[in-house]
Amino acid sequence: MSVLEQLDHPGNGTELKNRAGKPAEGSKEDHFEPNIIIEFDPKSKQAALEWLTAKLQAPRVEGGAELLVYTSHGEEEEETVLYVGATVDRLLIGAEEGRIQKKYKNGDLRDLSLTDIYNYENADDLDNFLTSAEKQRVILKAIESVRATDDETHIPGYSQHHLYPGKSIIKKYLSRKIVTSMYPLHDEESLKRLTSEWCSFNKYFNPQPINSIQKYFGTKIAIYFSFLGFYTVSLIPPALIGVIYFLYPWASMYREATFALFNLIWSTVFLEAWKRYCNTQCFTWGVLEGSGSLSKSLEEPRADYHGTMGTNAVTGKPEPVYPKWKRVLKFYLVTVPIISLCLVVAFFAMLAYFWAEHWIKKHGSQDMGLLTTLQNLLPTIVYAIVIGILNTIYRTIAAKLNKYENHRLQSSYENHLIVKLILFEFVNSFMCLFYVAFYLQDTTLLKTFLGTTLVTQQIVGQVGEAMVPFFFVKRRQTQLKQAAKRAGKAGTDMESPAVVRQSSTGSCKVDDSYKKQAALEGLMDVSAGCNDEYLEMYIQFGYVYLFSCCFPLAALWALFNNFIEIRTDAFKFCKVFRRPFTQQANSIGAWQPAFEIIGLISVITNCALIGMDPGVKKLLPSELSPVNYVLIFVAAEHIVLAIKAGVAILVPDLPKWVSLQMAKQEYQAKLALRKQMKEDISNRKPKLVDRILDAAQKKKVLMDAFKNKGVNKGPTDV
Amino acid sequence: MSVLEQLDHPGNGTELKNRAGKPAEGSKEDHFEPNIIIEFDPKSKQAALEWLTAKLQAPRVEGGAELLVYTSHGEEEEETVLYVGATVDRLLIGAEEGRIQKKYKNGDLRDLSLTDIYNYENADDLDNFLTSAEKQRVILKAIESVRATDDETHIPGYSQHHLYPGKSIIKKYLSRKIVTSMYPLHDEESLKRLTSEWCSFNKYFNPQPINSIQKYFGTKIAIYFSFLGFYTVSLIPPALIGVIYFLYPWASMYREATFALFNLIWSTVFLEAWKRYCNTQCFTWGVLEGSGSLSKSLEEPRADYHGTMGTNAVTGKPEPVYPKWKRVLKFYLVTVPIISLCLVVAFFAMLAYFWAEHWIKKHGSQDMGLLTTLQNLLPTIVYAIVIGILNTIYRTIAAKLNKYENHRLQSSYENHLIVKLILFEFVNSFMCLFYVAFYLQDTTLLKTFLGTTLVTQQIVGQVGEAMVPFFFVKRRQTQLKQAAKRAGKAGTDMESPAVVRQSSTGSCKVDDSYKKQAALEGLMDVSAGCNDEYLEMYIQFGYVYLFSCCFPLAALWALFNNFIEIRTDAFKFCKVFRRPFTQQANSIGAWQPAFEIIGLISVITNCALIGMDPGVKKLLPSELSPVNYVLIFVAAEHIVLAIKAGVAILVPDLPKWVSLQMAKQEYQAKLALRKQMKEDISNRKPKLVDRILDAAQKKKVLMDAFKNKGVNKGPTDV
Repeated sequence: MSVLEQLDHPGNGTELKNRAGKPAEGSKEDHFEPNIIIEFDPKSKQAALEWLTAKLQAPRVEGGAELLVYTSHGEEEEETVLYVGATVDRLLIGAEEGRIQKKYKNGDLRDLSLTDIYNYENADDLDNFLTSAEKQRVILKAIESVRATDDETHIPGYSQHHLYPGKSIIKKYLSRKIVTSMYPLHDEESLKRLTSEWCSFNKYFNPQPINSIQKYFGTKIAIYFSFLGFYTVSLIPPALIGVIYFLYPWASMYREATFALFNLIWSTVFLEAWKRYCNTQCFTWGVLEGSGSLSKSLEEPRADYHGTMGTNAVTGKPEPVYPKWKRVLKFYLVTVPIISLCLVVAFFAMLAYFWAEHWIKKHGSQDMGLLTTLQNLLPTIVYAIVIGILNTIYRTIAAKLNKYENHRLQSSYENHLIVKLILFEFVNSFMCLFYVAFYLQDTTLLKTFLGTTLVTQQIVGQVGEAMVPFFFVKRRQTQLKQAAKRAGKAGTDMESPAVVRQSSTGSCKVDDSYKKQAALEGLMDVSAGCNDEYLEMYIQFGYVYLFSCCFPLAALWALFNNFIEIRTDAFKFCKVFRRPFTQQANSIGAWQPAFEIIGLISVITNCALIGMDPGVKKLLPSELSPVNYVLIFVAAEHIVLAIKAGVAILVPDLPKWVSLQMAKQEYQAKLALRKQMKEDISNRKPKLVDRILDAAQKKKVLMDAFKNKGVNKGPTDV
Repeated sequence: MSVLEQLDHPGNGTELKNRAGKPAEGSKEDHFEPNIIIEFDPKSKQAALEWLTAKLQAPRVEGGAELLVYTSHGEEEEETVLYVGATVDRLLIGAEEGRIQKKYKNGDLRDLSLTDIYNYENADDLDNFLTSAEKQRVILKAIESVRATDDETHIPGYSQHHLYPGKSIIKKYLSRKIVTSMYPLHDEESLKRLTSEWCSFNKYFNPQPINSIQKYFGTKIAIYFSFLGFYTVSLIPPALIGVIYFLYPWASMYREATFALFNLIWSTVFLEAWKRYCNTQCFTWGVLEGSGSLSKSLEEPRADYHGTMGTNAVTGKPEPVYPKWKRVLKFYLVTVPIISLCLVVAFFAMLAYFWAEHWIKKHGSQDMGLLTTLQNLLPTIVYAIVIGILNTIYRTIAAKLNKYENHRLQSSYENHLIVKLILFEFVNSFMCLFYVAFYLQDTTLLKTFLGTTLVTQQIVGQVGEAMVPFFFVKRRQTQLKQAAKRAGKAGTDMESPAVVRQSSTGSCKVDDSYKKQAALEGLMDVSAGCNDEYLEMYIQFGYVYLFSCCFPLAALWALFNNFIEIRTDAFKFCKVFRRPFTQQANSIGAWQPAFEIIGLISVITNCALIGMDPGVKKLLPSELSPVNYVLIFVAAEHIVLAIKAGVAILVPDLPKWVSLQMAKQEYQAKLALRKQMKEDISNRKPKLVDRILDAAQKKKVLMDAFKNKGVNKGPTDV
């Protein structure tokens, strides 16, 4: 049945009919595998629903997406659900157009080329040639590239929701909440395999199956887990040294200094090595490409982006345009003052906490009773609650401001949000440590504070994480019940008008198993992305490195925590969350400089802490004047900063073999282009070339004359 | 006569025969314009000479260069000279192949395309369509790409000089000194125009004609002059402030601090603005392209590069290969110790100077007589001489070591040499200032020292520069005499056998004016590149910024000096030096980070100097403890460093319009490629496409059914 059978295939083509997958109840042709689910708002208008459905099914020559759609109408209060899939041919053509890279039989990654498909690995079974993530990508792209034409000025049924030519229709539906959600279905077989490899207890000590994660969840999530794993491994040396220091205490001015020096340089080594490792991984995944100004211009604006209609400066296509100066003004006149105010409030909350504690210590009762303990704990408890409330308020404000700034690209939107989150967490988590360390200059308090905060946070976190599977089991049961109800309904309303129309074509049904799956997954939590997980890691990184000379065991704690974190996060992605759309990325984005800045600050803090340590002061020759004493530490700080800069410069961002491989690919592309250009030129101006060859002929006569005299025989006659 | 007449030309083609240029004595066809001169060693073997000549003349289909060559044989002790030129057609074809960019009639820069040549500006006069620099580039490339074939294993007449397949023959001749020099001839008309625009006295206050310089001398030299000009202009604000400070002295702790702060941030602004300006310029010249790993792999190894025969890892072509670990070992085990030793010697020479001066001041006679003055000056004089000698020795050692390191690429060779030169100059020029400032802590001595060194160096330099034109006139007379002698000889030996052979073809003569020109230019100095000029600027930059709070007038002196320097350097390039081959560059290379490092160090030095200033100390509240006093300056230093980093990050390396323009070009290239790919695909698999269209047809029936029900009429029916 597949049109690909028409291509010259080394085999006899019969295996093409051997479609894998679940046994379908009806004829194989009637049923299809849905990859993406689109849920409509229950109150959405029928016209809008039918318009989108028709667009998705329409042939591409008419501006449609040429996809298979099965509509499951809900009753009164229930949402209507579209099941979207595609034929194998449509998927393969989409994969070729989307330049999806597949493994060639010689092991290279190459853009898929259909004329040549049987030279790719696993091309014998075309149904399963593309992974579910790739199918999902092709279909998502097809859905998103259904665009309004010149005469479609608004969504049918919603005259207030304007469209402009070239606007992605589904994005408008999503931003106007006509479509409440769109998500890909899990591929249960692959997921099962991935889960057993990744988050079963006996695999806790195995490395993560990053490549399988990348294949299933996409690059962005794979990079998060890869970073988490890489960071965890990088904690082993500081943790080991920390344990040794803890077990064998000795007094020497070099003790803390050596450890701090190691940590300071190690943090740079880790971040540079990560960049290199991440680039290598992205190269093998085929996503390591420059994020230059072109790709930025080609990226579509975010769904929420608004502005007056204009044209894209690069492509010339219509697109909303928002002047940059307005965004800059908004940023400096609105965002900066409000964020600063929030930070100041958080700062004063912290000061209030210290004052309260100080006051209670001075004026509170001094018995050893339970009440006194409670009374002493009171400021801490109040502060924790206040911080919690402030944090919630701040996150709401940050999100609103970020939206208000109206960023054109998803990436810049995210980076701005990350910076906002980091600023607040910095004040929240680290400012009190700075206050204790450098204003109160109380090293003992700092040590206690650091230890208790880190340990408390991690224990609370661990307990929370450990509860996830438990709650999951509970929730799953409820979900299963609800899902069964939904799926049952979906099964009964198959005779609704739209479905009848589609059934008449005989190619738009889905198996009941998919309906059940969709009903279940529709109830699952939506993952909020990895930013909160990165933030958690970021704060931990700060605790480990900023004051490492005070609390050498921090790395051990962090190591232990992350070791469990990896698997609970994995569990969440595999079992708890709805499957996220795969997203491309080739780095951890704004988190890389954020981690680097912590690395820089930690040089200053550690040098200052060691300098302030009275133990160290005693160990230095006493004839040293205080000024020279300070200057020594300033010099040390500069030297460490220089070493860090040296390490960062000397570690190349790409391993030799990757850059060689990239150069090779580029060279071959250039050769091919040049060859083609030459052909073009010779086709277009035969006369000129002929004349040149004529001239060459003329010269040849001259050369022959030379040769006869033995001049041009070259080396042979010497 | 031109084959280009065959192309459809809007005009009638007659102006093609109107060749501009000097009136030739004989028939126009017999004479050609030589662009490049190749001088053979007088002792070189005739076989080698004739082999190269034949190769250069041979048609390209036979591996030749298809150039015009006129051989002027010298007598016994005199060198043989080849005059190399090319026909207009050959030049144009070479320009197209070399992707030389020319201005299209709509003002854009485009790769030259011959089929479309009459849509380029100035294409009416094809003889002068290419500038002399472009002609020179085409011919040089043609000469260099004459390569040894598989059976040419050595140079004829020199069985010890081995060749490998693909080795550029002329590079072997040059590295084996069979060819003593190869240089392009000046284009006297363009040069005259450029000289009058650039280095006549009445143009001293005009901006430099950078675009004309780029056209005539190539990008590398144009970038040097552009940088010199940009730097000079950037000195105006610090010079102005310096003058104000000098004229209106007032005492405040903020006085020096404000000036230093301005200077510190200004240096970063200048360097970032330069990067941006340079990129913009390079973009308009069409040379702004990534210097990625591909272009590095494609660059041919330096002539001196040696190694065992292997293959290029990217192109797979044969090429000498030298293992990286050997270079690294050489660098760390030989270069680093020797260079360090040299630096230590220079450092001790400096110490000896201070000791000697101190000793003489203490023990010498205290009269005011001439002898005493001399005696007091003695250490300075001796030190100056010693430094001069050390400098010469060091430069020889550095060049030898750099050669010994066996760098594959010219660029990395140059960058390593630059770093070596900078290190020594740093110790030479700045170490004594550091010694005075921070070891002796003698601000008065520092001021005197800084002032005298800068002023003396510049006066000596200025006098030297001012002498150039004077000596030039003297030398030129001698050169003219010698040249006349040489040209006369060249005229008489035209009947030597080789010439007779060429004359017989009737197309290989050059005008006597060219012979005279070549004879004269052969005697001119060879420019040593711009590194020494950059080094001079670098040291000046150090004097201006490193201790700016001590000597505010430094910028004024530097400004004045550079103002004259620009024009004397221009004079040297136009009148004194042999014309250099044009070289591509898109930045000032290793000098950029070198200048940035000075900028960084200057933050430390200035903060320290202000902190050490007793005047400032008095102005601060006296209850401040010395430690806190130091900490204030450390904090200030960190803040300035942070501001500098902020400026460097916030100033984009490319102006918005350039990055937009680049994205546009890339986008159009991608569109074109995609269009071509689509055509290719539709050519290669008609059946698949037919089937897809069939399927589309089938879907259309379905859609029609929808439309009839009014579902797909979209917005119109709401």
